[in-house]
Amino acid sequence: MLLRDELSPLEECKMQTEVRYYQQPQLNKPVMVCGLPGIGSVAWLAVNHLQKELKAELFAEVFSPMFSPKVWLTEEGLVKLMKGEFHFWKNNEGGTDLLLFTANEQPYSPEGQYELADVVLDLAQKFGVRRMITMGGMATDRFTEQPKVYVGGTDVDLVKELEGYGAVKLAGGAITGTNGLIFGLAKPRKIPAICLLAETPGYLSLDANAAKSALQLSSRLLNISLDLTALDKQAKENADAVQRAKGLSRGGFPHGPRKGGERELPYVS
Amino acid sequence: MLLRDELSPLEECKMQTEVRYYQQPQLNKPVMVCGLPGIGSVAWLAVNHLQKELKAELFAEVFSPMFSPKVWLTEEGLVKLMKGEFHFWKNNEGGTDLLLFTANEQPYSPEGQYELADVVLDLAQKFGVRRMITMGGMATDRFTEQPKVYVGGTDVDLVKELEGYGAVKLAGGAITGTNGLIFGLAKPRKIPAICLLAETPGYLSLDANAAKSALQLSSRLLNISLDLTALDKQAKENADAVQRAKGLSRGGFPHGPRKGGERELPYVS
Amino acid sequence: MLLRDELSPLEECKMQTEVRYYQQPQLNKPVMVCGLPGIGSVAWLAVNHLQKELKAELFAEVFSPMFSPKVWLTEEGLVKLMKGEFHFWKNNEGGTDLLLFTANEQPYSPEGQYELADVVLDLAQKFGVRRMITMGGMATDRFTEQPKVYVGGTDVDLVKELEGYGAVKLAGGAITGTNGLIFGLAKPRKIPAICLLAETPGYLSLDANAAKSALQLSSRLLNISLDLTALDKQAKENADAVQRAKGLSRGGFPHGPRKGGERELPYVS
Amino acid sequence: MLLRDELSPLEECKMQTEVRYYQQPQLNKPVMVCGLPGIGSVAWLAVNHLQKELKAELFAEVFSPMFSPKVWLTEEGLVKLMKGEFHFWKNNEGGTDLLLFTANEQPYSPEGQYELADVVLDLAQKFGVRRMITMGGMATDRFTEQPKVYVGGTDVDLVKELEGYGAVKLAGGAITGTNGLIFGLAKPRKIPAICLLAETPGYLSLDANAAKSALQLSSRLLNISLDLTALDKQAKENADAVQRAKGLSRGGFPHGPRKGGERELPYVS
Repeated sequence: MLLRDELSPLEECKMQTEVRYYQQPQLNKPVMVCGLPGIGSVAWLAVNHLQKELKAELFAEVFSPMFSPKVWLTEEGLVKLMKGEFHFWKNNEGGTDLLLFTANEQPYSPEGQYELADVVLDLAQKFGVRRMITMGGMATDRFTEQPKVYVGGTDVDLVKELEGYGAVKLAGGAITGTNGLIFGLAKPRKIPAICLLAETPGYLSLDANAAKSALQLSSRLLNISLDLTALDKQAKENADAVQRAKGLSRGGFPHGPRKGGERELPYVS
Repeated sequence: MLLRDELSPLEECKMQTEVRYYQQPQLNKPVMVCGLPGIGSVAWLAVNHLQKELKAELFAEVFSPMFSPKVWLTEEGLVKLMKGEFHFWKNNEGGTDLLLFTANEQPYSPEGQYELADVVLDLAQKFGVRRMITMGGMATDRFTEQPKVYVGGTDVDLVKELEGYGAVKLAGGAITGTNGLIFGLAKPRKIPAICLLAETPGYLSLDANAAKSALQLSSRLLNISLDLTALDKQAKENADAVQRAKGLSRGGFPHGPRKGGERELPYVS
Repeated sequence: MLLRDELSPLEECKMQTEVRYYQQPQLNKPVMVCGLPGIGSVAWLAVNHLQKELKAELFAEVFSPMFSPKVWLTEEGLVKLMKGEFHFWKNNEGGTDLLLFTANEQPYSPEGQYELADVVLDLAQKFGVRRMITMGGMATDRFTEQPKVYVGGTDVDLVKELEGYGAVKLAGGAITGTNGLIFGLAKPRKIPAICLLAETPGYLSLDANAAKSALQLSSRLLNISLDLTALDKQAKENADAVQRAKGLSRGGFPHGPRKGGERELPYVS
Repeated sequence: MLLRDELSPLEECKMQTEVRYYQQPQLNKPVMVCGLPGIGSVAWLAVNHLQKELKAELFAEVFSPMFSPKVWLTEEGLVKLMKGEFHFWKNNEGGTDLLLFTANEQPYSPEGQYELADVVLDLAQKFGVRRMITMGGMATDRFTEQPKVYVGGTDVDLVKELEGYGAVKLAGGAITGTNGLIFGLAKPRKIPAICLLAETPGYLSLDANAAKSALQLSSRLLNISLDLTALDKQAKENADAVQRAKGLSRGGFPHGPRKGGERELPYVS
């Protein structure tokens, strides 16, 4: 294959993080709830549940080379990209409008995690978000049917409010990952924010009960009534498996069906 | 060696991904076939075979710091760069024109894989590509003389069409790597696309039989008649080696001559 | 979740390193003292002590995706970002004004370390810094109550001056990390600079005695009188622990309370 | 430390690769010789020797965040940055002018290696370089007092010319690293180039004899008479050590004094 002479100017192109809008919803000082997959998938389960229960509507997506270089297929063999999704919900009872954000996964690199947090906060500021809630799991080594929820905040009043609802103050320590970054980077942007971390054992990949605890607190903060029973089925499966494992000392736990999850890699091309 | 005073303004330079055009072929709504080296080298073998059989002509190359920092030498001691190559073939019988893309290797970093997919799709849009076919290997642990070919697509109709030709629908799962990215990223660019994954055992580095299966399906989709016998020789070598290995429990397999392959690193300077 | 048609132009955003100013202090040819956490936390302890003793005032902060993707919480549950802090101190006795720089941690990547050094030196040039002092630890395997302080400099005169105060010239070798980079990169910017490396055993994470030695030399260079007793308490704890460890062959050492330190990661979300 | 309100616009800064010129030498279609440290330090030793023997003059330096984040100290305690150096030599006998390039080390990342190669080639084009020579080591497992030199080239004629001088054609294979990249990337820039790889055992860190072999060939190509005796001393030390090791089965080899080398890291701050 011979090299021919160069006849055209060089063309240069470089993929960047992009947000594509499909609508521009009109929202009144919404609250944003963010939850990317992490420990126990707590945050992802919680936001996914909110989206389904409230029938929140997709209005924007973020694509980025900071997500893993892979694609997903539906049961029908249709391709889906790694991405983040923004949904909105208008509260027709005059209460708080909501913006939701989740993604297939957290970006694999530290730079990518900062970049994605930045994208989310840019959008939050664009829509006049008045309060940010992020979630996550706090890994403990114990299984409990009543997981505690810990809270950190940008302001003392917010922390106190959540303590009033039953959260335990996060006194010291660090939160790593994108859910923590969105929380902390809200501060210089003057968006009041909290991070709710629900206790979860390290070995449950879909801790629906922890997600439920985090949502129970959120619903009080948001003053929105939520039906959480759809999470109970998965929570029960986990509890049964823990019991069996304790009896058998085998310790294997169900992963369960998950749309948009990031943990399976059956094909490499 | 003393530092002298600075007499000139600073000069800054940064290498970027570049596409160099040697021709601007006139094509009529071509179909593009992409295959970078991956599992079993299935995709690379397939595209390489297409290029040779059809005598497709080189018209552009892509150079990038996302490829490994190395160069190759021919048997004559002439240097070759790591790169991607774009070939075209005009169908003089009035049928589908083709664009082909392959490269020495997939970029080593996730960002590089996204970037290369972006380059390929930019070029595809520039040439009005009406359909994108990417390929790859699906690793199984079994050797078969009749490897199945799995298909995923951007549209239901495409998937059904390939099922009609004998492909098996990819129901769920993920495809990692550049071949999968080009496939999935065609969707937001509104280019109908499929990905064909041929079964291949993990231990064959040049699975010509799997490449042949993928090409048999492609030729039906493209309605182009292809002579695939050049792949049979390598396929037979593999089958014989598998037989011997089963008898001897040794398991060594031929790599065979490979131009532009990425696996050997005899020199480090 | 169906993809909707694209209705808006793509929006692109990318987080970058940012310096946020809260004041623009008026300083007279100040000297800058830099110390990021590293071996023995020597540099960080020293600068932190200076800031407290002199009641130096915060005037700017640097945020960057080059810091680890995490956030910290105070004892009150309030979130703090990973960042670098710039403080200033006006010398009301007509002597040297000071600029101080420290951070939660050194950036995790080589590129990040260069970038942060660049930020610090840009600010130093902006404020007409006439001399730069960076610090660090030199790991030895021995514990001593009288750690030596080694010096390297951009100019022979500076090295000689510090040797006059009791420092030992660093003859050959290399200094890795951000403290070394700020030191070395001051040279092309024509800012005279020194790096003071205090001996420290590798196993002390908060070597207050080494920090004290480095500060003793600095105070002579700066002609500023410093009360170093606040470092003695930690230094004594370390010495006692070393003694006990030698007796018990156990070797565990106190970490002590640390604000802004980077070594604990109790939560992952 | 309270956060104050933001009073100033954000300031953003990012370090990039920079070439600083101290002179703009007038050269007549020079030949460029490049050699960065690599296997056996062959290339670095060769270029370093050329610079000293010819008393070539420094005219530019390249600084980059692609070099390791560290600095060096001279025996006088003076700081030196990681960098690349460009020297020139005017041939007063009417023959070939020379440009020389070497550096403390190869960049640590693949992107950095491409970037540095690009910098070097930009400068080469700026000065109308008519031929590029890069060097390196080819690792073998054998020690020989007469190391062969292998050659690869951008053109058949160049390869033949070097074969005429005693080099062995590099038939196939790959060259990794910056010396290989500068060589290969000269091709699209239309600069005729060769790469000379001298045999070296993997265990010699300063293979002066291999450097000498490479220089002997180069001097014939350049038609410049070179005194190579300064390399003999190191070469002899190596040969003696190999002999002793064969006798003792110990295998330890001298590193020798090295200015600008990259292998020692005595201090971490």
